Amino acid sequence: MIKHRAFVAEPWSLRETTLDLDVLAQTESLFALSNGHLGLRANLDEGEPFGLPGTYLNSFYELRPLPYAEPGYGYPESGQTIVNVTNGKIVRLLVDDEPFDVRYGRLISHARELDLRAGVLRRRAEWRSPAGASVRISSTRLVSLVQRAVAAILYEVEPLDAPVRLVVQSELVANEVGAAIEDDPRAAATLEAPLLSEHFFSQDARVVLTHSTKQSGLLMAAGMDHLVHGPGDIATASESSADVGRFTAATTLEPGKRLQMVKFLAYGWSSERSVPAVRDQIVAALTQAHHAGWDGLLAEQRAYLDEFWQRADVELEGDDDLQLAVRFALFHTLQAGTRAERRAIAAKGLTGRGYDGHTFWDTERFVLPVLTYTVPDAARDALRWRHTTLELARQRAAQLGLGGAAFPWRTIHGEECSGYWPAGTAAFHIGADIADAVVRYQAATDDAEFETEVGGELLVETARLWASLGHRDAQGGFHIDGVTGPDEYSAIADNNVYTNLLSQRNLRAAADFVTRHPRRAADLDATPEEAASWRDAAENMIIPWDDQLGVHPQSENFTNHQIWDFAGTRPEQYPLLLHFPYFDLYRKQVIKQPDLVLALHWRGDAFTDEEKARDFYYYEALTVRDSSLAACTQAVIAAEVGHLQLAYDYFAESAQIDLLDLEHNTRDGLHIAALAGAWLVAVAGFGGMRDHDGNLSFTPRLPPRLERLAFRISFRARRLEIEVRQTEVTYTVLDGSPLEIDHHGEAVKISSGAPVTRAIPALVAPTAPTQPHGRTPIRR
Amino acid sequence: MIKHRAFVAEPWSLRETTLDLDVLAQTESLFALSNGHLGLRANLDEGEPFGLPGTYLNSFYELRPLPYAEPGYGYPESGQTIVNVTNGKIVRLLVDDEPFDVRYGRLISHARELDLRAGVLRRRAEWRSPAGASVRISSTRLVSLVQRAVAAILYEVEPLDAPVRLVVQSELVANEVGAAIEDDPRAAATLEAPLLSEHFFSQDARVVLTHSTKQSGLLMAAGMDHLVHGPGDIATASESSADVGRFTAATTLEPGKRLQMVKFLAYGWSSERSVPAVRDQIVAALTQAHHAGWDGLLAEQRAYLDEFWQRADVELEGDDDLQLAVRFALFHTLQAGTRAERRAIAAKGLTGRGYDGHTFWDTERFVLPVLTYTVPDAARDALRWRHTTLELARQRAAQLGLGGAAFPWRTIHGEECSGYWPAGTAAFHIGADIADAVVRYQAATDDAEFETEVGGELLVETARLWASLGHRDAQGGFHIDGVTGPDEYSAIADNNVYTNLLSQRNLRAAADFVTRHPRRAADLDATPEEAASWRDAAENMIIPWDDQLGVHPQSENFTNHQIWDFAGTRPEQYPLLLHFPYFDLYRKQVIKQPDLVLALHWRGDAFTDEEKARDFYYYEALTVRDSSLAACTQAVIAAEVGHLQLAYDYFAESAQIDLLDLEHNTRDGLHIAALAGAWLVAVAGFGGMRDHDGNLSFTPRLPPRLERLAFRISFRARRLEIEVRQTEVTYTVLDGSPLEIDHHGEAVKISSGAPVTRAIPALVAPTAPTQPHGRTPIRR
Repeated sequence: MIKHRAFVAEPWSLRETTLDLDVLAQTESLFALSNGHLGLRANLDEGEPFGLPGTYLNSFYELRPLPYAEPGYGYPESGQTIVNVTNGKIVRLLVDDEPFDVRYGRLISHARELDLRAGVLRRRAEWRSPAGASVRISSTRLVSLVQRAVAAILYEVEPLDAPVRLVVQSELVANEVGAAIEDDPRAAATLEAPLLSEHFFSQDARVVLTHSTKQSGLLMAAGMDHLVHGPGDIATASESSADVGRFTAATTLEPGKRLQMVKFLAYGWSSERSVPAVRDQIVAALTQAHHAGWDGLLAEQRAYLDEFWQRADVELEGDDDLQLAVRFALFHTLQAGTRAERRAIAAKGLTGRGYDGHTFWDTERFVLPVLTYTVPDAARDALRWRHTTLELARQRAAQLGLGGAAFPWRTIHGEECSGYWPAGTAAFHIGADIADAVVRYQAATDDAEFETEVGGELLVETARLWASLGHRDAQGGFHIDGVTGPDEYSAIADNNVYTNLLSQRNLRAAADFVTRHPRRAADLDATPEEAASWRDAAENMIIPWDDQLGVHPQSENFTNHQIWDFAGTRPEQYPLLLHFPYFDLYRKQVIKQPDLVLALHWRGDAFTDEEKARDFYYYEALTVRDSSLAACTQAVIAAEVGHLQLAYDYFAESAQIDLLDLEHNTRDGLHIAALAGAWLVAVAGFGGMRDHDGNLSFTPRLPPRLERLAFRISFRARRLEIEVRQTEVTYTVLDGSPLEIDHHGEAVKISSGAPVTRAIPALVAPTAPTQPHGRTPIRR
Repeated sequence: MIKHRAFVAEPWSLRETTLDLDVLAQTESLFALSNGHLGLRANLDEGEPFGLPGTYLNSFYELRPLPYAEPGYGYPESGQTIVNVTNGKIVRLLVDDEPFDVRYGRLISHARELDLRAGVLRRRAEWRSPAGASVRISSTRLVSLVQRAVAAILYEVEPLDAPVRLVVQSELVANEVGAAIEDDPRAAATLEAPLLSEHFFSQDARVVLTHSTKQSGLLMAAGMDHLVHGPGDIATASESSADVGRFTAATTLEPGKRLQMVKFLAYGWSSERSVPAVRDQIVAALTQAHHAGWDGLLAEQRAYLDEFWQRADVELEGDDDLQLAVRFALFHTLQAGTRAERRAIAAKGLTGRGYDGHTFWDTERFVLPVLTYTVPDAARDALRWRHTTLELARQRAAQLGLGGAAFPWRTIHGEECSGYWPAGTAAFHIGADIADAVVRYQAATDDAEFETEVGGELLVETARLWASLGHRDAQGGFHIDGVTGPDEYSAIADNNVYTNLLSQRNLRAAADFVTRHPRRAADLDATPEEAASWRDAAENMIIPWDDQLGVHPQSENFTNHQIWDFAGTRPEQYPLLLHFPYFDLYRKQVIKQPDLVLALHWRGDAFTDEEKARDFYYYEALTVRDSSLAACTQAVIAAEVGHLQLAYDYFAESAQIDLLDLEHNTRDGLHIAALAGAWLVAVAGFGGMRDHDGNLSFTPRLPPRLERLAFRISFRARRLEIEVRQTEVTYTVLDGSPLEIDHHGEAVKISSGAPVTRAIPALVAPTAPTQPHGRTPIRR
């Protein structure tokens, strides 16, 4: 865990036993609550001190200018940045007129706990004020996974030694200070006070503030309502102004007595509806929350999560820390995606403002495969969101002189927001990543409605992009030149293997769709002739091969380049991109994150076992893991080719990326794709699961430390459980019809109520690979 | 000439017979006067109307922020922009209280003439005021090629019909309006009023204003002094304030009488000296100009230019327009470079603020070869300027992780100002271009002092860059990966042939220097071992070859890329960079400006005749000439491989690039390198001159239209004249010792007083190449 933190790993909760202000910002990310629509960083109830205040609504953004020293055709002029919206988390406390603040007086104890089954963040503190009054404060916070617009806080205070006068101020604060840290003075001006007041009111214990953004023209409302319990007289009052809403409860309390406040919060936004409509939606949500009551919200939350863990839990035996880390990772993956409902799933989820709140390819590449097999409806909704941006992607393709749809490298709303095209727009593989997510979702769910409404069109339009981006040589070979693959330490290369293999799958899937759904295809103007040209391009796709070295070059000529001077690179020079120019990184053999090795995972069907072993060995020596997206893929392939301890080391790195703050930027939000990657390592790495075009196969093998790994997946209206031990594996259909799977090359039929156990073949230990100097993962 | 202009071509002057305000800005560039230190755009004397007001001092710049949508390591944070300094050209005239303004009253006649032998701009106008008073105004303007700080204007007025009251106001105006047109509001703020007043004074007919810049901390002063002649009483007065200096002369004049004012101007700047020092330097320069008087300045100017034309004239018989165009081109090349004296020669000279006043590689690649053989001292000074920036270039190399010196892609003062590295910093060939200019200058002058003080160090430090930029493959082949060659429609490619061949020359020349000057080499820490590694790198330099097509790919894999859809590109989509994204241009076979063909010219010694013919033919079909640097090189190689008419077409394009405003941006300043290129076509194209490492050779051949071409060059303390006719050529040593040259493969010894005439071998007409659809040059 973060080194100087007092974290305690329990099977189902992350517990912090003291408060360390040095890592406050990191813990605000780790303990963040979200349901994919509303995200609350774990800022302290009393608002201050904070690391980075943050309350986010999915896709609620402001526009900012994108400046260029030297402009060029097709560069996006406007960026999108997630807005820190009205903060409803604040509950301030006055104890005998002195404000509760952990920096003053004496903090006797402080503990926080993220409960992964209850879905709440609990906090408990004992504090003595500078004047000597002692109180115990406890709060429990939830962002409802059931009532999407709703969050709630149970806040309790009790005196410890002597009677105290207490005032509890529950607030809504818009345009809070401290959220905008921008180099560009113009952007800072936009984002320092992003919200314009449109309406505010307070009545009884209820306050609603409505605001709009200046450039993007979006409207949002945040509301709160309260229930107060306690002995004796409690005076209450509410007030509201443009940027502040306040509900106050004041009383005097004896030791052993308790003042209890339930704060209901509701949030909503719209790009189209009116101020009254958005405001009233919030009032309705508050009423619903009020109706459910605190206990009702808690019970719904528990039920939702019980069902989720039933469906998706990953159990490890032999490593308690990683058991927690994997569940933590899965919990945050769920929080990022589950109720996004046709909005983007951002790289940081709703846990921070890193990357401006943008969504990248990693959603489709790393997050959706997890959701597809655990919360398939969330995967479906995320792809439906992509589909809503299709017209923008078509326009972008047209602007670039291409056919079909060019999805943005980074965006919130759908427009390209990448301000550096060699590492942005040129990374066209995002189209194939989306197509791969479509193919995977469809194969895992048989969701016919999705295929007709969404999937087919996404496949057709992405295939059209490849058809226009590539070209044929004199022998008919299909080349895709001048693109950037997943590895961001290379750019603008010809025939990137990952891109070409994933676009091959994309082209084939689109052609299959046209064959299987001729009427829908006709609606999309996709003719059999067009499908034939896609099949031909896929068939003749150029995959470079280095005959001298006997490995696949990541892209054309890659293996002819100079190898980076790893021995001469000092530890403090990582990540390399902060200490070396792109031009030098691009022209040498040095890899930020798996690219060819990523192809070994997701297009493993295109490689022989020997190629996989040789390729992994070669690229392992070049990969510095300056990206959070690296370790999980290296783990999956390390496990496949037999480096089980190495795979386990990478497993820990991916699962603990935020718990240990390995990238030193957890303060800006969690690395959702890397956390999703932890699930991938468990399931695709040690479970050896592959799903190439709907053919489910497993090659399970445990690392030395684990005694048992069990995971559950949803697959075509079935729930499967796979329980792996060192020498054998048991496949179970928990519910649903029988299924044929592949176990280490053997076809195995499994059906409900009849678990099948198979031996795991012995492993011939391969030659251990090496990593670049100083970049070997920590041995676990 | 600019189509709707009344230009008259005379052998030695460019004449405009009417004033057309639609092309005012272009004519301000065409008629600009400069001596390499001070540049005056040809703004009308009375200041308004103007196209783009401009008064420039070489290297007097302001800093501006360089913004990035996504920052990266090593990106320059600050740019440099040439400042429009105090305008001393202004002479306003009041005729019976009505201001002379060509937009009001009636302009009866208006004529301007740039006299290439006198070195002056003459203007003559007859004007009737709205109230009916008629005057004849004539002005003659010069920027002294002899007194570097000095310019002067002779301004004369005479009434045509009736007596008039006249007031002449001669001014200095700082921070004049209309000079800053910027998209970026922050840059605009900097550049709208770039000058801070430091001091001003007026006394008698003299005014001096001293200003500084805000960010770059430079100091400049501009001064004026006056002589007034005329019949009767002339009242005069002078005044000064922070940003305006004014000298006024008022009188009443009879028809037939004339009021004459001589305005002496002096300009200077410094980054180190104090306000009094800079101011007094200007006063001294004014005194000197005053001492010489108008006639004295005129006479000095004439003598300077007589000597120049004696040394450097290019005579054409058979095409009067091109005769003028070539002299015009040579005149402006002279103006850009002759008195720059260890300051940069900018891409636009001092004729406009295009490219922010920056200097690029084209100075060394196109301009210095002309100056080397015509005004060698100017070439020397320009290279001495580069040498003064060596420490900055070393720092830049170190920042980029490279050895030696990395010269900036664009700069005024020496720091890298390129805000888009794939087409800037990555174009490392600029180092080899500088080295080539050094080698060429040394070979053509035997300037031993230069070699010891400047040349050797430039060669050593640029060779070190290549040694660190390249790497060896297993067979010892030396590769230079990930660089951008001259063609800006390609970027970041491996083994660019131009770059590799020019760096090969660079490495060899540096190694030779170490061998020949061991003591100086030791001062530079250049050991025999280092020299040996340079020789080895040069020897084993990889030059890609496409065996299937039998041509050199411009860079590795270039000829495998898709050929641009020329047939589908509409005329209005040129230049392509304004209508297509870089990513698409980079990955296809489409060429903005010669790259491989540029290597055919400057490293012609590395190609066989057949390779040249095949390569030219291949690349001609891909080259769209979206750069002003294209036509001259295509002309030179077209002539060499035998396409003489095509070469002539390109010759006209290069020589007339600004006279015909072919790039539609002559308003921002002249294309100095393209104008220098006109000389290159005459001398290296139709004269067939090559100078590879000091071996002078000629393969002259005239295009059908020319009867005679004669040019003179300076070469190792000799003046040579080469007179080419359709069937024979005469080589003459005008003064200096005998010389052996190569004529169409035959060694010929020529000596003073004994011209040698040789027949020109008959040409076997090769297959005519084609250009991309719609990009064939205009047939001349």
